[in-house]
This record gives sequence, C-alpha cells and structure tokens, in this order.
Amino acid sequence: MTSKNDLIKCHNRIKPLIHNTPVLKSSSIDELIGARLYFKCDNFQKMGAFKMRGAANAILQLSEDQKKRGVITHSSGNFAQALSLAANSIGVKAYIVMPSNATEIKKVAVKGYMGELIECEPDLSAREKKSIEIQESTGATFIHPSNDLDVILGQGTACKELLEEHNDLNYIFTPVGGGGLIAGSALAAKYFGSNCSVIGAEPYEVDDAYRSLKSGRIEKNSSTNTIADGLKTELGDINFQIIKKEINQIIRVTEKEIIESMKIIWERLKIVCEPSCAVPLAAIFKEKKYFQQKKIGVIISGGNVDLSKLPF
Amino acid sequence: MTSKNDLIKCHNRIKPLIHNTPVLKSSSIDELIGARLYFKCDNFQKMGAFKMRGAANAILQLSEDQKKRGVITHSSGNFAQALSLAANSIGVKAYIVMPSNATEIKKVAVKGYMGELIECEPDLSAREKKSIEIQESTGATFIHPSNDLDVILGQGTACKELLEEHNDLNYIFTPVGGGGLIAGSALAAKYFGSNCSVIGAEPYEVDDAYRSLKSGRIEKNSSTNTIADGLKTELGDINFQIIKKEINQIIRVTEKEIIESMKIIWERLKIVCEPSCAVPLAAIFKEKKYFQQKKIGVIISGGNVDLSKLPF
Repeated sequence: MTSKNDLIKCHNRIKPLIHNTPVLKSSSIDELIGARLYFKCDNFQKMGAFKMRGAANAILQLSEDQKKRGVITHSSGNFAQALSLAANSIGVKAYIVMPSNATEIKKVAVKGYMGELIECEPDLSAREKKSIEIQESTGATFIHPSNDLDVILGQGTACKELLEEHNDLNYIFTPVGGGGLIAGSALAAKYFGSNCSVIGAEPYEVDDAYRSLKSGRIEKNSSTNTIADGLKTELGDINFQIIKKEINQIIRVTEKEIIESMKIIWERLKIVCEPSCAVPLAAIFKEKKYFQQKKIGVIISGGNVDLSKLPF
Repeated sequence: MTSKNDLIKCHNRIKPLIHNTPVLKSSSIDELIGARLYFKCDNFQKMGAFKMRGAANAILQLSEDQKKRGVITHSSGNFAQALSLAANSIGVKAYIVMPSNATEIKKVAVKGYMGELIECEPDLSAREKKSIEIQESTGATFIHPSNDLDVILGQGTACKELLEEHNDLNYIFTPVGGGGLIAGSALAAKYFGSNCSVIGAEPYEVDDAYRSLKSGRIEKNSSTNTIADGLKTELGDINFQIIKKEINQIIRVTEKEIIESMKIIWERLKIVCEPSCAVPLAAIFKEKKYFQQKKIGVIISGGNVDLSKLPF
C-alpha cells in the first residue's frame, strides 16, 4: 500500500512549506515518569499544528487543472487552517466548511490565511452535505482531514523527523482523533524506527479508536464531551486499515488526567499546547510502570489555544 | 574593566551547567512589526530563566573554602531558583532570603532545587538585614542577583549565543530590572556584535533605569505596581557604570501594552513566558516606526509563571 520511498518523497515534497520543528526535553518530567521523553513540538509548526504537513502533501499533488478549481474540506479546526495556508502558499483557493460552534480563534485564523469560510450546523452530516454542495458548484477537490493517504503520509513526517534526530526511541505516543496522525506515525516508525512501537492515546469520552481496535470495525462516539477538542472526530476506512495492521495499543485517560498533564507540559516545558497534546503524556503517566527507563517520543500536535478559556 | 576574553572564558566555564537555548521566529509577529525578530528563548533555560547563567558563573569562581561554607542571596524569584540549582549542581549549600509575598511557584521551586528558604518582610531593607544575619552566622558568601560582575558576565552569555547564531542583528532588546541582563548584554553586543545596539525596555510603573540614565545617578522607585514582577528591583553601582557607558535608550511601556504583547508571544510563538519578557516586545511595537526592516534580537528572559494568575 505504501513504501518507505513514498514517505521520503512526501517529506522532500513538503519541506519548502513546513518547519522541521524542535524536539524539547524536560529533566523534571523525565524524573516524574522514570523514562526519557522527547517532545516533538509541532505546536511550533506553521499555522501551529502538524496538520500543515498533510495538507501540504495533498495540495502539492493536485494537477494544474485541479489547482485552478481550488480545494475544499470540512474541519472543526486545525486542518481548516492548514489547508487554507497550504493552498494560499501556492496560489490555490480553499473553501472551508466549519461547524458554527468552532472556536473563534480558529475561524479568524482561517480567514487570516485567506480561506473562504462557510459555516454549517455542528454535526457531521451537515458538514458533509454542505461540502458536497460546494464541490458541485465550484469543481473544487475535496481533501479529507485524516482519511486520505496523501494526508496520512504528510502527517507521518513529524514522526520521521523525530526518528531522524533520535533513532533509538522505543515508543512514540500520539493522540488519536481522526486517525491521520497515528496512521502516518505508524508508517514512519515502521520505515525509520528501530523496533519502535507507536501507541495511541485517547480520552475515555471519545474512545472510538480504542473500541474500533477491539472490535475490528470502525466504531462511533455517541457523545464527544472532552476538553481535547481536536480529538472529537472518528476514524476513516483508509487510516483504520493502517491502524488495525500497525497499532497494538491505545491507552485511554480521564479529563482530569488530561488537564493535569496539560498543566505539567505548560509549566515544565514552557510551551503553549492544545489539550489534545496532553493526552499522550497523560497516558504515559497512567501506565508509567510499563515504560521505566525507556526512550519515548511524544508528538505535541498543536498550539492553537484560546487563552481566555484555559482549564487552570 | 572587562574584555572580550572575560566573556569567552565565562561562557566556557558555565557551559556544562546551562543550555544553549533555541531562537524562535514568527512570521506573523514580523509582519505586525515590519522587521525581523529573533527571540532568544531563555524561558527554556535550566530552572526556566537566564538567571541560571549568572548564578553558575558566580558559584564556579568560588574558592574550595568558600564552597564549603555555602552561598546566600536575597531575591524575589528567579535568581533564588538559579542560585539554588547552580549551587546544588556542584554540591554547594544555598541560603535563599525571599520576601514572604513571593509567588508560591517560586518558593516551591527553590525548595525543589534544595535551596534553604528563609522568608522575610517584603521590602529591600528587611531582605538585606536578614541576609547579613545569615552571612555572619554561617560564613556563606553573598552573591547579589544583579550587581556583581561575575553575574553580569554570565547573563551576557544569552546575548553572546544569540549573536553567534545571528551575527548581523541591528538591535537587541532586553527588559531592565536589577540591571544584570542589560549590562551583560551590552558587553556581549560590544564584543560579539557588528554595530549592534542594546536597547532597554521598562514598565512606566518601575522606570528607575530610564530615570537613572537621564539623571546620571541611580534613581529609586517610589512604588512597584507592575505585572512584570521580575522587574521590580533597582540598579546597582556596578551594573549602572556599564549601563551608563553602553546603553543609549530605554523605552517605557504601559501595563496594557505589556499584557497585549504577552498575549501575542503566547499565541504566536506558542511559548509560556513571564510578563517581564513581554516588555521588550511591547517597546518594539510602541516605537516600531524606528525599526522598520531591521533585524532585532529579543531576550525572552524567563518562563516561571503561575498559570492560575494569567492576565488573559
């Protein structure tokens, strides 16, 4: 389905549009866990999240004719900004369908990156319907935020960069939302790691990926009552095939555990990150007895936070 | 008084105890100002502030006999942590006299770094009195947080590292509190810059350095009603001699301007920094017409913030 060479070509393709983000360490967090943690800070990525990687890869592979007609996506947040910025960087029009209850900071950012914002009711079927309408009227190419192989490969480049810098990691933890990041990371760990396992982390409140991995088919969330607003989406058939094959473990955490870990990241690493980014660290804390003395990568997925709504 | 070689030797001496911290950029902040800004992130320094540099340099120059008797300082915050950690790193006892109204996070951190905390009334004369008592009873060596040439040289290494990475900066902005950082930065810019001027930034509410530079003698603050809690201290005779000679300009900013710039740093750079760190950026915004198209370094001085007391 994919090869090591696909990921190398993808990375080379998107390099002009992305940052190779820094890896930070904290000796005090290492002491608290009893392991060595390497935080890959994609909150410092362009537009503030790893989503830039996948958006850039998808857009750069459009034909000239497709580029003229533009791109469209529906997203609750960071992928909307990513597609807007990636498209604008190469002169392509982006239509963004966003739920009306998305945070104001994310709506403003989409407009700042010259995306055309179209609001819809805050449910998945409304998003999809609106998106199809616009595709039909404009001829724009739909790019899914996570269930698209080009997007998945793009997201995997964060993990590839991390492994290029620290090639002996035993584990890499990622949050699981729509599934693009963990699927891409699993491919990167397989191609570039040395016996490195990728482990997912998910809030109990939206544990669809945990249940999907157990049942072997894509499960839905009946509610999405979590502070980790980037993780409310569900898996798709393309990324789930990769996740089923490559991922053995998803650890679930409570809302309280997420907020505690978020505070630790802000206080110890001195970085601004989204609640979703704290889910992997919360999972490591929860199961730390299994990870003593290990070298663990953690993908810090984004930093687009509304500072007036912090949980502490 | 000092030479380029003194600063080189100082830097080599302290390298085992400090991080060479990353320099971050933000294209959106650059656009807002109309210049290119390079943020030297000493909020990522050990113990979370540039103060580690000066404390390390001072301690590493003690005699073996002095090391046995320990060190003492009085500090409202970061220098207390810095001296505790630097001392503990080489097996020296640190006595820390701290005002009783210092933030809880700073008191806890001093204890975490094995400093012996002695609280006193929150005014300068009480601090000095208590500190002399302890010196007399223990024989510990007093190390001033800013009015000490070894400390000044140590603080200058942040600016030296920044200029080693970006040697064509036109300006470097620092906050001004006790005067150690700006004095050390002025020396580093003179020795390692290429026609690079250091400019100070200060809240109107504690503008003692601005007034001292005007009058030619050390002025006091009648009140210290600023959010920039790291800048409430006053200049000393040693650093003021350097400041008088090397610094031509200190720009003052309002509390509102400080908070606005702090929010911009958190939102755009995605880093956690103290209000004091936002004072230089606020000064650049205020006078941006004079800095169009220039290359400007900004020292981000520390990241030890009480997250439950943010101004936004």
